[in-house]
Amino acid sequence: MASAVAQGGTRLLVLLKGVAQVIFQANPWTGLVFLVALFAGGWQFGAFGLLGTVVATLTAHLLGVSWDERVSLGLEGFSGTLTGVGLVLYLEPRPMTVLLVIFGAIAGSVLSSALTVLLRPYGLAASTAPFCVITTVMVVGGSAFSRVWAVHASTPAPSAAAPGTGLSWTYLWQGTLSGVGQVFLQDQWYVGLIFLAGLVLAGWRLGVIALVSSLAGLLTGWLLGAQAADLGAGLYGYNSVLTGIALFGTFVVATPASAVYALIGVVAAAGFSAGIGNLFAVAGGHTLTWPFVLVTWVFLAAVPMFSRIRRV
Amino acid sequence: MASAVAQGGTRLLVLLKGVAQVIFQANPWTGLVFLVALFAGGWQFGAFGLLGTVVATLTAHLLGVSWDERVSLGLEGFSGTLTGVGLVLYLEPRPMTVLLVIFGAIAGSVLSSALTVLLRPYGLAASTAPFCVITTVMVVGGSAFSRVWAVHASTPAPSAAAPGTGLSWTYLWQGTLSGVGQVFLQDQWYVGLIFLAGLVLAGWRLGVIALVSSLAGLLTGWLLGAQAADLGAGLYGYNSVLTGIALFGTFVVATPASAVYALIGVVAAAGFSAGIGNLFAVAGGHTLTWPFVLVTWVFLAAVPMFSRIRRV
Amino acid sequence: MASAVAQGGTRLLVLLKGVAQVIFQANPWTGLVFLVALFAGGWQFGAFGLLGTVVATLTAHLLGVSWDERVSLGLEGFSGTLTGVGLVLYLEPRPMTVLLVIFGAIAGSVLSSALTVLLRPYGLAASTAPFCVITTVMVVGGSAFSRVWAVHASTPAPSAAAPGTGLSWTYLWQGTLSGVGQVFLQDQWYVGLIFLAGLVLAGWRLGVIALVSSLAGLLTGWLLGAQAADLGAGLYGYNSVLTGIALFGTFVVATPASAVYALIGVVAAAGFSAGIGNLFAVAGGHTLTWPFVLVTWVFLAAVPMFSRIRRV
Repeated sequence: MASAVAQGGTRLLVLLKGVAQVIFQANPWTGLVFLVALFAGGWQFGAFGLLGTVVATLTAHLLGVSWDERVSLGLEGFSGTLTGVGLVLYLEPRPMTVLLVIFGAIAGSVLSSALTVLLRPYGLAASTAPFCVITTVMVVGGSAFSRVWAVHASTPAPSAAAPGTGLSWTYLWQGTLSGVGQVFLQDQWYVGLIFLAGLVLAGWRLGVIALVSSLAGLLTGWLLGAQAADLGAGLYGYNSVLTGIALFGTFVVATPASAVYALIGVVAAAGFSAGIGNLFAVAGGHTLTWPFVLVTWVFLAAVPMFSRIRRV
Repeated sequence: MASAVAQGGTRLLVLLKGVAQVIFQANPWTGLVFLVALFAGGWQFGAFGLLGTVVATLTAHLLGVSWDERVSLGLEGFSGTLTGVGLVLYLEPRPMTVLLVIFGAIAGSVLSSALTVLLRPYGLAASTAPFCVITTVMVVGGSAFSRVWAVHASTPAPSAAAPGTGLSWTYLWQGTLSGVGQVFLQDQWYVGLIFLAGLVLAGWRLGVIALVSSLAGLLTGWLLGAQAADLGAGLYGYNSVLTGIALFGTFVVATPASAVYALIGVVAAAGFSAGIGNLFAVAGGHTLTWPFVLVTWVFLAAVPMFSRIRRV
Repeated sequence: MASAVAQGGTRLLVLLKGVAQVIFQANPWTGLVFLVALFAGGWQFGAFGLLGTVVATLTAHLLGVSWDERVSLGLEGFSGTLTGVGLVLYLEPRPMTVLLVIFGAIAGSVLSSALTVLLRPYGLAASTAPFCVITTVMVVGGSAFSRVWAVHASTPAPSAAAPGTGLSWTYLWQGTLSGVGQVFLQDQWYVGLIFLAGLVLAGWRLGVIALVSSLAGLLTGWLLGAQAADLGAGLYGYNSVLTGIALFGTFVVATPASAVYALIGVVAAAGFSAGIGNLFAVAGGHTLTWPFVLVTWVFLAAVPMFSRIRRV
């Protein structure tokens, strides 16, 4: 009995770690706070995010992925979390979306293992690429299917309602916080603040890097002349947050040289957001975390050429 | 004299095996039946398919690809077969199309060797990727060239003439057979039946897997709300047929666990068809066997992570 | 004092070699003539090309890329050269473009190192891929940013002003020379002639290969029915020039067999130009040297399969 409770507790921890791994943390408390933040953003984000985490983790476990090296650390859950959140955001909460999240998490789990094998010779991880691929394919493919498709007009860019490039103080501070929340596709500043709290639980330095990266991404967008409402919604910050944390301390040893290196990556991720966004918009796709994934892969793959930068 | 006849016979066998390798078989009788099916679909499909097979095989042989390991098994022919069929379908039978098939088969042969080298560290094969690349580039690129371009309106989706999502019994059984024929881009159910017969010649289990996979692909499309006429034409089945055969017995050891694994791949390939189709339609491209190629690469690459699944 | 002058001289040599490496030469005199050609095409091409070369080379050096194996040979400069020329062509000479070239050269330098690591197991080089990626992302992404965007109508296809497919003698000889100049995105025949002179400085055979390849590319376009004014501007020649030089003598041992092999590549690069061009035009992108990069990677990767062809 006690053993069954303990086992149930272990399983719950694995799921919470899965949510936390969206930002590279194996800390269940961080995962719990992230989950609270998702529910604060809307019941559907919490519920579908959890569904994706459960299905992805379970798929990996049933197929026989190593428990000690992968599953128990939450490494098989986070792409499922984001797939659940992403699909419910772009396809609305409906019975068909439940089915798509389940299948998307299963397929994403296989894709995650495939990328792990393919990228291993280069010391790279699958990261959130499975989420990006599955969500892009399902949202773009959705238009062919009458039972799936929800009008994209339901999620217009924030700038559609308030055009203009004048950056106010409110846009600046809200956008910096929203940039943290947009890692989970949430655009409210107070939701971003809860995510930030979860991150600080895992280490206050992480909170600092997240805020600095989000601000740097926002300023990059502003410098280029992006719409202020999009900046205020954190759309130029979240890929920078992930890139900053990945390149400074998590996968690259933190030094003054790597701080500059990470900052270049942070700016590249923000600038790249627009390029990717425009390219995908042609076919009805979304930016997601593609800029983070691609920029971070490039910046990590390049490290062996640089005597000044070292991998962790 | 007898020796020359024997040699000519060997060469013919290699070509027939090349056609059979479209569905992973090195059986010349299967290839012969497949060729009959192509001619039953239309003289141009048989003629251009054969032309592609000859040119691709000859190119590989002249460049010095290993006879024993590759050419004699038909492994250098099948992408040429499909390139011939694909180009004559989308660009019509014209003198310029003959030239394009010849050059496409030559370039596809080089691409096939390149992919063989690039994918070898992961134990993956080029599969029909060269056909997909060459045909996509030539059809998309065609619009720039006044002498190449044939109006795509000549090959509209079947659903354009008969819209609606109500799946009749006729659509169901015809679509399941057409799904086998669409592997060679043929949409008549009786042509699909001849292909099925060729497959059964190589092993009755292959026929069962093909039918089950085709049906599973069709039902996936129906569940998602695809147009019934497209389902009836086998458009959601052929990538599933190839994926099912590849993942159950051909490249993965057939077990109860791998049956489930293959079924996930079969469903993924059918669902993916829509995503890829919409993405490529933007630029005037076609779905071809891209979903099979990408899904099968992912599902095969992932195997080393799974203790329950084993490669052949 | 003398030492400082010598050191300054060494640095200048590295930059000139960087410009020369656009066409695989480590010859500073060739680089000097190429630079003169760029200025002959327009002050902005010379100035922005030089800026890109300096920033890319400096970035690599500061990050600690090997001086002897890479930086001193100009291998860290040439993608920056092209990025500078490409961005000023498509985004006009403005203060924001200066910033974009600087950042593009920095990010391109990191991408160049990443590709070097990723492609090393296959014996392939990054080539001009970093230029293609950075320029595509920045030009496509530009439309999201009010301060970056310059109307693309400022660089229409030459055929827009003079439609028709009749190839005159003037188009033929001018197009063959322009094909050499378009390697640096220059469309004047006399600018192409200066580039040719620079190439001949490094070896007269290179000049012959460049002219033959450019002509072969032009004739491929003509055979397919391309617009004559585009042929005359060298748009079907430059990817062939780079492919021809790469595949005949530079990376592949020059033999009668490899001459045929290179010619197939040269024709493929010309034909591919249209496919890539149409695909990218959908999102506002440009052909750049994508066809050369992709075709050459494929033709080099395939070599180990062919007993008749050998890598240098």
